[in-house]
Amino acid sequence: MNDVRGRTVAVVGATGAVGIEMVNVLHDRRFPVAELKLFASARSASKKVQTPFGEKTIEEFRPEALKGIDFVLMAVSGDFAKAHAPALAKQGSIVIDNSSAFRYEPEIPLVVPEINASAAIGHNLIANPNCTTAILVMPLWPLHQAFGLKRVIVSSYQAASGAGAEGMAELEDETRKWAGGGKIGNKVFAHPLAFNVIPHIDVFQPNGYTKEEMKVTWESRKIMGLPDLKASCTAVRVPTLRAHAEAVTIETEKPVTPEAAREILRAAPGVKVVDDPASKTYPMPVSASGKYDVEVGRIRESLVFGPNGLDFFCCGDQLLKGAALNAVQIAECLLPGLRKAA
Amino acid sequence: MNDVRGRTVAVVGATGAVGIEMVNVLHDRRFPVAELKLFASARSASKKVQTPFGEKTIEEFRPEALKGIDFVLMAVSGDFAKAHAPALAKQGSIVIDNSSAFRYEPEIPLVVPEINASAAIGHNLIANPNCTTAILVMPLWPLHQAFGLKRVIVSSYQAASGAGAEGMAELEDETRKWAGGGKIGNKVFAHPLAFNVIPHIDVFQPNGYTKEEMKVTWESRKIMGLPDLKASCTAVRVPTLRAHAEAVTIETEKPVTPEAAREILRAAPGVKVVDDPASKTYPMPVSASGKYDVEVGRIRESLVFGPNGLDFFCCGDQLLKGAALNAVQIAECLLPGLRKAA
Repeated sequence: MNDVRGRTVAVVGATGAVGIEMVNVLHDRRFPVAELKLFASARSASKKVQTPFGEKTIEEFRPEALKGIDFVLMAVSGDFAKAHAPALAKQGSIVIDNSSAFRYEPEIPLVVPEINASAAIGHNLIANPNCTTAILVMPLWPLHQAFGLKRVIVSSYQAASGAGAEGMAELEDETRKWAGGGKIGNKVFAHPLAFNVIPHIDVFQPNGYTKEEMKVTWESRKIMGLPDLKASCTAVRVPTLRAHAEAVTIETEKPVTPEAAREILRAAPGVKVVDDPASKTYPMPVSASGKYDVEVGRIRESLVFGPNGLDFFCCGDQLLKGAALNAVQIAECLLPGLRKAA
Repeated sequence: MNDVRGRTVAVVGATGAVGIEMVNVLHDRRFPVAELKLFASARSASKKVQTPFGEKTIEEFRPEALKGIDFVLMAVSGDFAKAHAPALAKQGSIVIDNSSAFRYEPEIPLVVPEINASAAIGHNLIANPNCTTAILVMPLWPLHQAFGLKRVIVSSYQAASGAGAEGMAELEDETRKWAGGGKIGNKVFAHPLAFNVIPHIDVFQPNGYTKEEMKVTWESRKIMGLPDLKASCTAVRVPTLRAHAEAVTIETEKPVTPEAAREILRAAPGVKVVDDPASKTYPMPVSASGKYDVEVGRIRESLVFGPNGLDFFCCGDQLLKGAALNAVQIAECLLPGLRKAA
């Protein structure tokens, strides 16, 4: 990196599934961290945690304690973000918020750096997108640039950790309980998740879609700058631990062949074409977990839209590209002097 | 039932997941069974099994042993069915075959009784459809009659038992192994299934679709008599034990509202509208397992096709409506004198 000046970085919500990955990604990508501060609720304050930056002590969140911090990465609830993010930004920090609190405000950028990095420049409050959307737009954007998107239909296969560390723990604990002869229960999820699928993520909207489903429509449009894109999602929780999968059908403006799509996607940053049926190679949660790239495969001509359409399957780690990685990538875009070198 | 004359019935493949359910369904629906004979491979011959008809001894399959049998329900491989079903039919039995061996032969009817019962009349070899398709067409057909189908896009969430009793056993055994600290393995499935999803069911075709996916297209067209229907599926194995779920998007000829669709579906035989998001009520594998009806819910206007389209989610027990129940229903259609009384 050309710019070696270290920055002070705070992670707020540092004990959650996304917060922990934010710290890991900062280290792994050699973000120039001069000082790292980890914040969480009073419950976790004074707790010591092991991180790639050494042992750290969790501090209770107080806005005053973040004065002078260059970058604040927030992995907190929408309500908490609403209450504090604008003040932290006003205080001078660049705030990157992983909640949905600001994603739909026209003046606040919603950024996936491979697509609209420039939208972040000059802003000090930036929204990080919904996990399912961030994974989806990675293949959609290069396909749009090459062939033009008309319609997008998505069915998701979302992992338990999309509901946070508690979600992952519930699936593991209840599965162990089942193995011991017990009954599978639920607290985090609306229904027992082990050996089940639940077509219900986030709250229902008046139009019958869940908020998770509408996020895919709203956020895909905003990130790609396609306000009239026809996009629809069925969001389904499945008993996987990590990495969301998505079955996607697109209609395109121009004709597209699977091979032309593969060529475009092979050249796309952050995308990995994993598409060799003969060797049983296709995107799967077990292979995409822990990876930065979004896997794309099962690419074939749509039987519904013909030569102007494709069916494909993609899979990405929703804690990484769907959350922590994307947030750190946004911060990288805002390291002055670094953008040109990237 | 008006016609009380009992029939002789044979189940071939009686020790498999589907064969066992065929026996249960025959009893549960009070099919007029005068004599029940259970056949399987030499490996299971002489084995005694408990059934609702009392203890039965499995016989090794020999065509001669089925002479004079009125109804033969086959739950065997395509190759086995090809080798024996035509001869059994020629011998005088009515043969209902659950394999894909005969489904695409123009002169052999492929039947879902709620849709095309009359196609079975006069035939003595009838094909039982693919499980995912049988579940799908249950809501599609009444919607087609009311609003006209133009396009159908399906993503499936298919249970381990779709791969037979061994598939279900592998998921259970490997999950228990994981709970005991072991590594999740696979033999039946292409990859480990516990905590994973696998976008690969049956063999790949030259067009990039799997045979399972093409079955949905081919069989939906044949059962509903819509040879030009544009239909596409992504078939995905998920770590559930029983009951397939499907996320479905349709485009219709006529405008359709979710409420009009619900009204049509409420009146449709074999369909249960399970659609009350406010009380977290929607189709799920855990609720659809063991049930005859296909659950349909999450019915909403398509964001992609507007007032001429719907998104919905359905779930059905693939061992019942997807296999054993449908086969017994076909046999019921062919009990002379019974059709009028049904």
